[in-house]
Amino acid sequence: MPEVLDIGDGSQDALLVRIRAGGHEGWGECEASPLTSISSYVCPMSHSACKPLRYSLERKNIDSVSDIQMIGAAVHENSLDLLQADHTLSGIDIALYDLLGKKMNEPVHSLIGFKQVYPKLPYASRLFGSTAAETYEKAKKTRADGYRAVKFGWGPFGKDSVEKDADQVFAAREGMGADAYLMIDAGTVFKQDISLAAKRLDMLKKANTYWFEEPFINGALNAYKSLSLTEPGVPLAGGEGCNNIVQAEAMIDHAGLQFIQIDAGRIGGITVSKKIADLAALRNITYVNHTFTSHLALSASLQSYCGMEKHFISEYPVELKSLAREITKEHIVPDDQGYIHVPEGPGTGMTIDTVALSKYLVDVEIIVNHKVLYSTPEL
Amino acid sequence: MPEVLDIGDGSQDALLVRIRAGGHEGWGECEASPLTSISSYVCPMSHSACKPLRYSLERKNIDSVSDIQMIGAAVHENSLDLLQADHTLSGIDIALYDLLGKKMNEPVHSLIGFKQVYPKLPYASRLFGSTAAETYEKAKKTRADGYRAVKFGWGPFGKDSVEKDADQVFAAREGMGADAYLMIDAGTVFKQDISLAAKRLDMLKKANTYWFEEPFINGALNAYKSLSLTEPGVPLAGGEGCNNIVQAEAMIDHAGLQFIQIDAGRIGGITVSKKIADLAALRNITYVNHTFTSHLALSASLQSYCGMEKHFISEYPVELKSLAREITKEHIVPDDQGYIHVPEGPGTGMTIDTVALSKYLVDVEIIVNHKVLYSTPEL
Repeated sequence: MPEVLDIGDGSQDALLVRIRAGGHEGWGECEASPLTSISSYVCPMSHSACKPLRYSLERKNIDSVSDIQMIGAAVHENSLDLLQADHTLSGIDIALYDLLGKKMNEPVHSLIGFKQVYPKLPYASRLFGSTAAETYEKAKKTRADGYRAVKFGWGPFGKDSVEKDADQVFAAREGMGADAYLMIDAGTVFKQDISLAAKRLDMLKKANTYWFEEPFINGALNAYKSLSLTEPGVPLAGGEGCNNIVQAEAMIDHAGLQFIQIDAGRIGGITVSKKIADLAALRNITYVNHTFTSHLALSASLQSYCGMEKHFISEYPVELKSLAREITKEHIVPDDQGYIHVPEGPGTGMTIDTVALSKYLVDVEIIVNHKVLYSTPEL
Repeated sequence: MPEVLDIGDGSQDALLVRIRAGGHEGWGECEASPLTSISSYVCPMSHSACKPLRYSLERKNIDSVSDIQMIGAAVHENSLDLLQADHTLSGIDIALYDLLGKKMNEPVHSLIGFKQVYPKLPYASRLFGSTAAETYEKAKKTRADGYRAVKFGWGPFGKDSVEKDADQVFAAREGMGADAYLMIDAGTVFKQDISLAAKRLDMLKKANTYWFEEPFINGALNAYKSLSLTEPGVPLAGGEGCNNIVQAEAMIDHAGLQFIQIDAGRIGGITVSKKIADLAALRNITYVNHTFTSHLALSASLQSYCGMEKHFISEYPVELKSLAREITKEHIVPDDQGYIHVPEGPGTGMTIDTVALSKYLVDVEIIVNHKVLYSTPEL
């Protein structure tokens, strides 16, 4: 966006990945810092386990799902010590699936083995207003727009008194009505402080909060586990900060979560998301997507678990900036019953609107020892 | 280095951080991809939790240890969704401690509260030879050079048969002698495959291996835990891939490790290393540094645990490329008894050899929308 505001809205910029092979084209999106991720793709090799991502990708064949999985495995080996790698791989993996789907004329969810897909109940994902009154208005409008589920998060939550947070939460509940699903997202505000988070449980319980999300930083297993055992019990959700499967597995096994939230744009794409969805089903906790950006990201997120009926709810961003909205020509909109459906077109089922995007294109040039390693390509 | 080889030698490039304030200068080093880390420092803001690292650092006051801790906390909040952030923060944190130490005329270990320091037994950290015979020669030379402890790792280990690995391990043992500490580093080669790793335990036990390092990828808690309970028991070491305190805590609590290995150049610097050293002591497992680069990195690593007598062993790189060797004017060398000592000079006690380094300096330029965000400064 021409102007990026200092708010928790991840739709203000975007890093798109375009991969071309055999006359086909696939698109993916990283939920990640664009410049940093681009650098990880083109950087000079530091040593055998710190190679740029392009090393594992370019000039490889893509004829099957296992070819995509092999590229992911190669990235993990060749870029083991490159911390940013998983964020960059995420968009690459999605683009590879899109490419393969377009080549095979099949949606991604068929490629990864789902025989049947199920609708999901979208929850409107919103930022808290700066006042409880503003949150009430947002909630009321959300319900009027037809949503039966909402999540409020970030903004002032956790930064002042318990009472102020309670005002916010009850305002959200009042605006949505007693029968709606209401989720609260603390945005990691309590770091690892269990007592600060525990003080919010009473009011969250009273407001019939469906889940309490990310009270702590990702991976703080002991803090999550301890809070999950604290009365009155409120179901915990977390995991969006995971960037690989073992981190998600640790959250599933040791954090007392009832909902594991995975961002396909951070965790390594559809390959890794699908593995975690399967693992969640096995361990009897609910898998939910984390998506706060475009409908390309939303489609990619849905692919990994659209065939799993019990995992019925889906994060649905409703405050998208124009950039994120304009990335795709198609949009995933709720049907008459208020459910969303995974696209049935080939790949992710999304067409990138390169004409609309051209006004947002950022010129980047990275030069190392007088050699241009990266220069923004034509759209 | 002018030429970077495709081997597991992390001393082939370096990312140095120089911070100037109040007429003083501090230096740190990131064990990380230089271009990617630089980009994370200067990248445009994506949203409130994805800001460049410079946002949390520049124009802040540095008068005390708590000022440094506050900068680390600010980075974690402002760059929460920037995956590379911890690798970049590591060199910054070290440079800030060096700066503060120089200002206060005290070594870092005094600043962080150690009243007394203890010598460490250096283990020579080496790559396996391509053949067992080559490894034998390396081991023999290591012993002749006065080292009583050695670690061999990476290279062919785990990539062929158990017998070939055993040949390598017994060659290392033979070359070092029966009374030496011998550690084996699998370099994550078995990913999460417990049975492949378990097949190596018998021969590792027979060779009296002091620890078996990183059989699996970092964070694979279940695989580590399971192997730690498999007979014949060989003590496990791991953790170098951790990039924050909660990941290290998970490895300490759930992976069955007897040694936790922390790289101050990846985990967030001296601030976080020290916290993990304290945690390890509390949980009764041994803290060890991970260092495979310069003596600046080695000094930074030693600062965090030099006051802890029971944690007696230290990784000591002996195959440094000239670049890593020439970063510092001083070097930490074993004394007559074969022990190393943390430097007593102010800060990290190291002087950066800017003249020697000038021949290695890499010209980098990062331009976004015609604005130069980064250009390699003068040394």
